Amino acid sequence: MRNSSVPRVGIIMGSQSDLRVMGAAAEVMERFEIPHEVTIVSAHRTPERLVRYGREAESRGLRVIIAGAGGAAHLPGMIASLTPLPVIGVPVKASISIDGWDSILSILQMPGGVPVATVALDNAQNAGLLAVQILGAADDELRAKVATYKRELEEKVGGMVDRVATEGWRQVRDQL
Amino acid sequence: MRNSSVPRVGIIMGSQSDLRVMGAAAEVMERFEIPHEVTIVSAHRTPERLVRYGREAESRGLRVIIAGAGGAAHLPGMIASLTPLPVIGVPVKASISIDGWDSILSILQMPGGVPVATVALDNAQNAGLLAVQILGAADDELRAKVATYKRELEEKVGGMVDRVATEGWRQVRDQL
Amino acid sequence: MRNSSVPRVGIIMGSQSDLRVMGAAAEVMERFEIPHEVTIVSAHRTPERLVRYGREAESRGLRVIIAGAGGAAHLPGMIASLTPLPVIGVPVKASISIDGWDSILSILQMPGGVPVATVALDNAQNAGLLAVQILGAADDELRAKVATYKRELEEKVGGMVDRVATEGWRQVRDQL
Amino acid sequence: MRNSSVPRVGIIMGSQSDLRVMGAAAEVMERFEIPHEVTIVSAHRTPERLVRYGREAESRGLRVIIAGAGGAAHLPGMIASLTPLPVIGVPVKASISIDGWDSILSILQMPGGVPVATVALDNAQNAGLLAVQILGAADDELRAKVATYKRELEEKVGGMVDRVATEGWRQVRDQL
Amino acid sequence: MRNSSVPRVGIIMGSQSDLRVMGAAAEVMERFEIPHEVTIVSAHRTPERLVRYGREAESRGLRVIIAGAGGAAHLPGMIASLTPLPVIGVPVKASISIDGWDSILSILQMPGGVPVATVALDNAQNAGLLAVQILGAADDELRAKVATYKRELEEKVGGMVDRVATEGWRQVRDQL
Amino acid sequence: MRNSSVPRVGIIMGSQSDLRVMGAAAEVMERFEIPHEVTIVSAHRTPERLVRYGREAESRGLRVIIAGAGGAAHLPGMIASLTPLPVIGVPVKASISIDGWDSILSILQMPGGVPVATVALDNAQNAGLLAVQILGAADDELRAKVATYKRELEEKVGGMVDRVATEGWRQVRDQL
Amino acid sequence: MRNSSVPRVGIIMGSQSDLRVMGAAAEVMERFEIPHEVTIVSAHRTPERLVRYGREAESRGLRVIIAGAGGAAHLPGMIASLTPLPVIGVPVKASISIDGWDSILSILQMPGGVPVATVALDNAQNAGLLAVQILGAADDELRAKVATYKRELEEKVGGMVDRVATEGWRQVRDQL
Amino acid sequence: MRNSSVPRVGIIMGSQSDLRVMGAAAEVMERFEIPHEVTIVSAHRTPERLVRYGREAESRGLRVIIAGAGGAAHLPGMIASLTPLPVIGVPVKASISIDGWDSILSILQMPGGVPVATVALDNAQNAGLLAVQILGAADDELRAKVATYKRELEEKVGGMVDRVATEGWRQVRDQL
Repeated sequence: MRNSSVPRVGIIMGSQSDLRVMGAAAEVMERFEIPHEVTIVSAHRTPERLVRYGREAESRGLRVIIAGAGGAAHLPGMIASLTPLPVIGVPVKASISIDGWDSILSILQMPGGVPVATVALDNAQNAGLLAVQILGAADDELRAKVATYKRELEEKVGGMVDRVATEGWRQVRDQL
Repeated sequence: MRNSSVPRVGIIMGSQSDLRVMGAAAEVMERFEIPHEVTIVSAHRTPERLVRYGREAESRGLRVIIAGAGGAAHLPGMIASLTPLPVIGVPVKASISIDGWDSILSILQMPGGVPVATVALDNAQNAGLLAVQILGAADDELRAKVATYKRELEEKVGGMVDRVATEGWRQVRDQL
Repeated sequence: MRNSSVPRVGIIMGSQSDLRVMGAAAEVMERFEIPHEVTIVSAHRTPERLVRYGREAESRGLRVIIAGAGGAAHLPGMIASLTPLPVIGVPVKASISIDGWDSILSILQMPGGVPVATVALDNAQNAGLLAVQILGAADDELRAKVATYKRELEEKVGGMVDRVATEGWRQVRDQL
Repeated sequence: MRNSSVPRVGIIMGSQSDLRVMGAAAEVMERFEIPHEVTIVSAHRTPERLVRYGREAESRGLRVIIAGAGGAAHLPGMIASLTPLPVIGVPVKASISIDGWDSILSILQMPGGVPVATVALDNAQNAGLLAVQILGAADDELRAKVATYKRELEEKVGGMVDRVATEGWRQVRDQL
Repeated sequence: MRNSSVPRVGIIMGSQSDLRVMGAAAEVMERFEIPHEVTIVSAHRTPERLVRYGREAESRGLRVIIAGAGGAAHLPGMIASLTPLPVIGVPVKASISIDGWDSILSILQMPGGVPVATVALDNAQNAGLLAVQILGAADDELRAKVATYKRELEEKVGGMVDRVATEGWRQVRDQL
Repeated sequence: MRNSSVPRVGIIMGSQSDLRVMGAAAEVMERFEIPHEVTIVSAHRTPERLVRYGREAESRGLRVIIAGAGGAAHLPGMIASLTPLPVIGVPVKASISIDGWDSILSILQMPGGVPVATVALDNAQNAGLLAVQILGAADDELRAKVATYKRELEEKVGGMVDRVATEGWRQVRDQL
Repeated sequence: MRNSSVPRVGIIMGSQSDLRVMGAAAEVMERFEIPHEVTIVSAHRTPERLVRYGREAESRGLRVIIAGAGGAAHLPGMIASLTPLPVIGVPVKASISIDGWDSILSILQMPGGVPVATVALDNAQNAGLLAVQILGAADDELRAKVATYKRELEEKVGGMVDRVATEGWRQVRDQL
Repeated sequence: MRNSSVPRVGIIMGSQSDLRVMGAAAEVMERFEIPHEVTIVSAHRTPERLVRYGREAESRGLRVIIAGAGGAAHLPGMIASLTPLPVIGVPVKASISIDGWDSILSILQMPGGVPVATVALDNAQNAGLLAVQILGAADDELRAKVATYKRELEEKVGGMVDRVATEGWRQVRDQL
């Protein structure tokens, strides 16, 4: 069922320029073969579209929403106010941002009753993984895939360990 | 016309507990005899009410909106996205706030096209005065009242100057 | 099945003193009737217990973990490294904390591959709700309960709107 | 009347190098056909000129003042102390600035009685729009123009939505 | 000459409530028997008084000015723009202040050509001492007094050293 | 030898009022029976004493120095410049401090060649433990004591785990 | 006497690489024809030289010391502890620095009794001017030169005003 | 014994890319001829390896551990929880980092009982030196080498002093 064509994860952002960061979330969806959609929803420029997207998300079949935004980043929190689905927020360090502090704080510091699952600055990859883990909470197969993914990360570190041991740290550093 | 009963300034906030700070804006309206309204609009708990308030503000006769919020403060920016009226934002240092930085940044750092006129942390009095100055931009009488208000501030400082000169600084300090 | 006695949400923290903040997450579990457990796991004082808890969480039936910590808050991230389950992190503004910045940053800024779903400072209530929403992603009934919960929040604001309209803002403020 | 040659908006800054940022405010004036003036007033190098500019602004016909400054940014606040007109402050992230924090705080945190309508860091475009909205508070035609402007922003997002839907997000990203 | 009645150091602040902090500067003047004056000058409420104070300071015989202010603290920098005398700025952590950061940055970050000698937050005692050191730069007797003052500080530490050695650290701590 | 009367750890601070925080370091010394001394050395008020203390520390038999300071905290770094011994710095959040940031940064950010081993804000207990660990690097017995100490910490957590399991989290919380 | 060869202002810094910033202070000395010296004194690498420099400064004829440093910047404060002369501190945003916050706080936040006159980040020009103003406090001729300098700054702004008026702001901006 | 082949200092980091910063620690080991090892241990990707490394460090003969990490930097603190050895933490300003604040705070702010000796941002050289000083606490010869090293730093400054004196500051600056 996970592979049907109805999107289960919605990836939204305020402007197409955010794709530079947010594309990584979609790539995780592809890797885990999660049906998903990617689109533009601007809290500040298309507020009615924002409300529609939030209100219809559940009935359209979405189960998780990933929202990325920079500066005074209202998209994740506003979407969270409009849906019972879990919403993941990605603070984007856009050109408008003050070192990212504004994006982080305006996504993270949501009031009681309306959580946003915030990930690290510009880390849409982690937003994607978190969406997979959320879907995996009720899907043994998917959870197994996450476990495999984590083992691969571990093996990659193992490769580094070997390389530093074999070639020596200086050699490895000088090739960075 | 300024004294008619149709509110020209809307003062909104996410919770009645914000009245502790936001009441000062309404008091400025009273002092300058500006018809106004005070109500609760929560961006995160009543998003449809938010949209309705923003979309109808102009046609209801409002000319300026003052919005106060703490933490991930989305109310001022979201209202600004919904109306052509000028919107004044008051960052509130609520219990949820990280020293007020979150409120300030999530109100101030709006993207191009959707300004919010931000005032100092917890300074609803200044939000009220700014609303008066905005209405005064096209109202000679009101502008004159603002000038009078500023002269009164000046005179109050004059009173302090005299008191320190007469009584001595130590005496004044010890009575603080 | 959701009401069976096997805990589906694990709520952990480094010290019993964190219960002051973290209890709110358990209260949300109770309200939504989610089987859950509350226990102490210290990343820095019981590292083997940490590994055991993380490695066994999935097979013990947990589907979401909520971890709260203050200062150099390593518990949420370390648990996330040990399980394929989604992990929610609550930055706690403990006495050891520098205005909470240390807790926030050491929970939020996880590297690629190991997300932690971070919520607002001291906001264990939102961590609880997020856990419910995550379980709700595959549970229509639970999702409906969340929708109901959100409507109640909305109605509470409606009550405030009415009260301010009826009693007047000054009256309401003076009773805060 | 709005199109007469008497400037209604004064755009000032401490140095001609600020034109790099502040020019955007003047461009908004041009788009909305608001008579305006652009000039240099330095709080710290030409204090008497500052006082003269502030004291004469109203009688010269100005109705809004936009002031941009970086570092210890005193120009907006000092002008605000000298006129009953609304003053908009633009924090400029000049080379002298500490990531812009100094400009933001020294413009935003004005004391009671002397508000400055602060906009986002380096966002002179929003300062311009705010000035238009302020003039529009008493000008139906201008307010309609602002509404049109907002619809154009909305349509631009619509164009992005279509493009991402048609071409696919990866394609759009790769052309950023 | 130093003891004549013409004030050589002007101690100014925006409000009499700042005397709580700024009184310490005057107390240093008294200890070193420097003729001085203490008065209220508000940059934002009495801008013409500000200009007059700054422009006349030198001809009235002042040689150093100490200015304290909180929030968007413009008084020290504006006075510095109006006089060739050295100006010492005291950032005051007033109730309006964001942990003092706003006062510090708006006093410290002055542009090229208009320095303000900034001291630590709320440290008017050090502002007073700095004024004495500045006058002492051309006054052997006064410089000798400063040297004596520093020796007294040293002796006070010597007293602590002895006390901890004699009574033991625990005893001393328990009497703090 | 470790128990002889020649102090091996020097615990210094700028003022006796710092004993409130720094006493905890001495208590760790007592628990591990490390000969130590506690005294006052002020970088800014007794600079020659500072130099003497730093230069003589090694020949007097000290092997580790713990230095605590608040505000512009120069004591740890200056001592480190004067001795080949390892120096541990404790940032103290004194009344003079800006939320502790000043103490932390002025102790931590030492230039190349002159490290200071910085511990958490106000955490003199950890400074003491670090000193024990440093001495333990060449002392099997002491290292074993540290291992024991860590096991005790672990057991204390075990006690909390049991208590929460037995009494229930609510009961434990309500007794905090 | 001001032009004799005995240096009256000492300009010191921790490393020759600081000359990139600190050279501007020496250039101000040259412009005002103040006898001065420029040398390297490292608080952390040459502590005895530091003490000697500080202790001998007054008797060698120096009347003001300008000290620049980055990171954990102890040079200005330590020199201030060693001399009755006024000390000006220049926070340098060196490569070691965290956006300059470390330098600013470790220079600014000096304890009571040992002030450092701190100027803006990297602003050695202002440190130079402040030194001139300090010497000018007892030197009518020098004070007159400072007044002239300020008038030149004012005229330079006048030139900008004219240029923007004549050429138009767009033209000026496009040539920046 | 110090030169035997059993490593006494372990230098670890989460990824081979950290070698860019951490290599400097190894270079200090080489200069002081301390047997050491360099390897990759990722707290978040190889948690079991982390535990093994920490638990076996002492019995393998290590006496000090240097751990570098960026972002939510858990490696140093987790290693410290696993060993009685002193652990030195190097906050790395990796691409993932928010100006380094996250790394600094998540390494520095360790809870009572588990210290990490934190050095300046990216300053692995100082971590290396601190390790040498720690080993030197029980090794007269090594301590003498550290003293020599410090004298060399002093001489290098002496060379700068001479160069500036001989060539003039402008000449030296222009060759930077």
